[in-house]
Amino acid sequence: MTDFAATKARFHLPRGLIYLDGNSLGPLPLAAMARAERVMRDEWGDMLIRAWNQAFWMEQPRRIGDRIARLIGAPPGTVVAGDTLSIKVYQSLAAGLSLRPERKIVLSDSGNFPTDLYMADGLLRSLDRGLTLKVVAPEKVEESISDDVAVMMLTHVDYRSGRAHDMARLTERAHAAGVIALWDLAHSAGAMPVELAEVGADFAVGCTYKYLNGGPGAPAFIYARPDHISTTWPALSGWLGHEAPFAFDPAYRPSPGIDRLRVGTPPVVQMAILEAALDVWDEVDIKDVRARSIALSQRFIREVEARCPIWTLASPRDPEARGSQVSFAFEHGYATMQALISRGLIGDFRAPDIMRFGFTPLYIDEADVIAAADIIEGVIAEKLWERTEFQKRATVT
Amino acid sequence: MTDFAATKARFHLPRGLIYLDGNSLGPLPLAAMARAERVMRDEWGDMLIRAWNQAFWMEQPRRIGDRIARLIGAPPGTVVAGDTLSIKVYQSLAAGLSLRPERKIVLSDSGNFPTDLYMADGLLRSLDRGLTLKVVAPEKVEESISDDVAVMMLTHVDYRSGRAHDMARLTERAHAAGVIALWDLAHSAGAMPVELAEVGADFAVGCTYKYLNGGPGAPAFIYARPDHISTTWPALSGWLGHEAPFAFDPAYRPSPGIDRLRVGTPPVVQMAILEAALDVWDEVDIKDVRARSIALSQRFIREVEARCPIWTLASPRDPEARGSQVSFAFEHGYATMQALISRGLIGDFRAPDIMRFGFTPLYIDEADVIAAADIIEGVIAEKLWERTEFQKRATVT
Repeated sequence: MTDFAATKARFHLPRGLIYLDGNSLGPLPLAAMARAERVMRDEWGDMLIRAWNQAFWMEQPRRIGDRIARLIGAPPGTVVAGDTLSIKVYQSLAAGLSLRPERKIVLSDSGNFPTDLYMADGLLRSLDRGLTLKVVAPEKVEESISDDVAVMMLTHVDYRSGRAHDMARLTERAHAAGVIALWDLAHSAGAMPVELAEVGADFAVGCTYKYLNGGPGAPAFIYARPDHISTTWPALSGWLGHEAPFAFDPAYRPSPGIDRLRVGTPPVVQMAILEAALDVWDEVDIKDVRARSIALSQRFIREVEARCPIWTLASPRDPEARGSQVSFAFEHGYATMQALISRGLIGDFRAPDIMRFGFTPLYIDEADVIAAADIIEGVIAEKLWERTEFQKRATVT
Repeated sequence: MTDFAATKARFHLPRGLIYLDGNSLGPLPLAAMARAERVMRDEWGDMLIRAWNQAFWMEQPRRIGDRIARLIGAPPGTVVAGDTLSIKVYQSLAAGLSLRPERKIVLSDSGNFPTDLYMADGLLRSLDRGLTLKVVAPEKVEESISDDVAVMMLTHVDYRSGRAHDMARLTERAHAAGVIALWDLAHSAGAMPVELAEVGADFAVGCTYKYLNGGPGAPAFIYARPDHISTTWPALSGWLGHEAPFAFDPAYRPSPGIDRLRVGTPPVVQMAILEAALDVWDEVDIKDVRARSIALSQRFIREVEARCPIWTLASPRDPEARGSQVSFAFEHGYATMQALISRGLIGDFRAPDIMRFGFTPLYIDEADVIAAADIIEGVIAEKLWERTEFQKRATVT
């Protein structure tokens, strides 16, 4: 059984704050400070260029990939870290399309995170060969799978509502129609068990700054099913995806392994911080995380609905159909969230009216949930959203 | 006049080491440690998600872009930091091609860094519309410019020889033939004056971990000429290039400014480290850097040629035709470089026989040059390259 008091002790959690926004940016793991200092002073500072060999910087993205693989049901050698999620979406969609050159449709849903849709749009425009991005409602995905679809590109857990797609079922349906299944795990990696190999997903991507606590702008990751690794030609054929980057070969020859989905020079400091964040997971069973996340979020829903009937649950009530966040809709959501933050409860807001609360058992416990409900009750009772100070919009919501 | 003793004091330079490899990875600026600590503890740690607004993380890539702009002769609002150089090559080449849809050739040279050629190859394969990457010898570029060329894509300073292209002349010739000029400044930004606006370059890209000392895997940058910014549709249309990223609009609408060449979430910690590294440049005149770099490298050539006639200069003898590095060719170059490193002189090696030495006046002075020549003389006199311990190949050269 995972010791969640021990995991909680491994994070920097500011006093007087209840942080229910780990689904947006995970908190600082204490070990990350020392790790960053070490990579900067002892490696960059003292070893200088030699650190690429001596400190194993070059292997870091693959080593990190293997550690993430364990959390998403992928075998070693199928995941590599790097770039941003947007770039990884582009790479994996390009790879998927290259496997179905005769098909003309990319199927996605309106619950997908905008950047996934934007990157797909940019890729399809560039390719300029009559491809269409078909965006349907999440509940219409299954019936929209057909044999003219090249790639089904979905985010597993909806960033607004927390609604989780049935990955196994949709992947099976896609495959039955010869469709490539590409999953974005931004809101599921580290939040709930994912079984990429078991469901047979073709490609997957994700970010590491949410539930994996890798820090702001931490590198993303990409998974390719073993049989696709050596059969897809990388659209973003950067030198670190080359079979022998330091041969400085004028012609690109892709690495035979997952390294071919690397692109440029890795962000070594952010990689080191991410690696320190992944250390926390060594003593964690993701099934325990899931069980506790469900317990915490069910409790939260019960408390909030009992105390604040003017809020409407905007997430599935069935925890099995949900990721690790709970959303409530409220007309005055933006100002209410600002008021909650001013009282020490951090969640976030997504237009037009969604307040999100993330449940991250590594550092959130039942006492936090009760304290959060107390703060919410107070803000609602005092109608704090009516105050103009809470209505002023910030750049980043 | 720039005070180079003062700039040298701002770097962590290990004792007993002469570092002539700043053209590959610049050393640690002392202020970067504290900056990284601050962004991690005070911003990520204490502000958590609020730091995007409160610590101005969202503006960081553009703020850094403006500081780099000053060093490469670009006006404010035309440069933005992010991703890797490989990604930025892809973006800028795609943008250039979109401006010349009827032309079928991308012109480059064999002195270009491999990843530039690889990324171009990957883009042209993906586009699959009969585009060709024509790679000529560096001295044949000018005569190869013709009105069927869409984009001329060159690295300003050759990574092996240090040979500098005449950017003004080639850009002018390109424009006379209606060709888009794209320059990679990896080996010139921070090494020598570059006047992007003056020469009228259409696009430019560069990395910041060499002469700008931004650290291993520091973010790259991209420049677009003001008239191209709002007229090219980004191929990599990520959410941070959107006009209003936090509107979560289902449709992509590019930002009217240089922000449209942003893609995903920026690596905040590496950005902060880069920003600390750029502080050093506040009191530096790039013309002074260039004059001193020439003085140091001319002295180095003189010393080495006098002491080691078995080495052959592999860089242009005329300093005006060279960047800020000096290369020598030597049959036993690999083992010789290992021997030099074992004696405390760090340069690097590029296959098949090139030894590179970078001159970076911010922290290298005349005494370093003399000490380097002394070490070289000793290694040559003792024929240390014959020792098997120096012949063993490492992953990264």
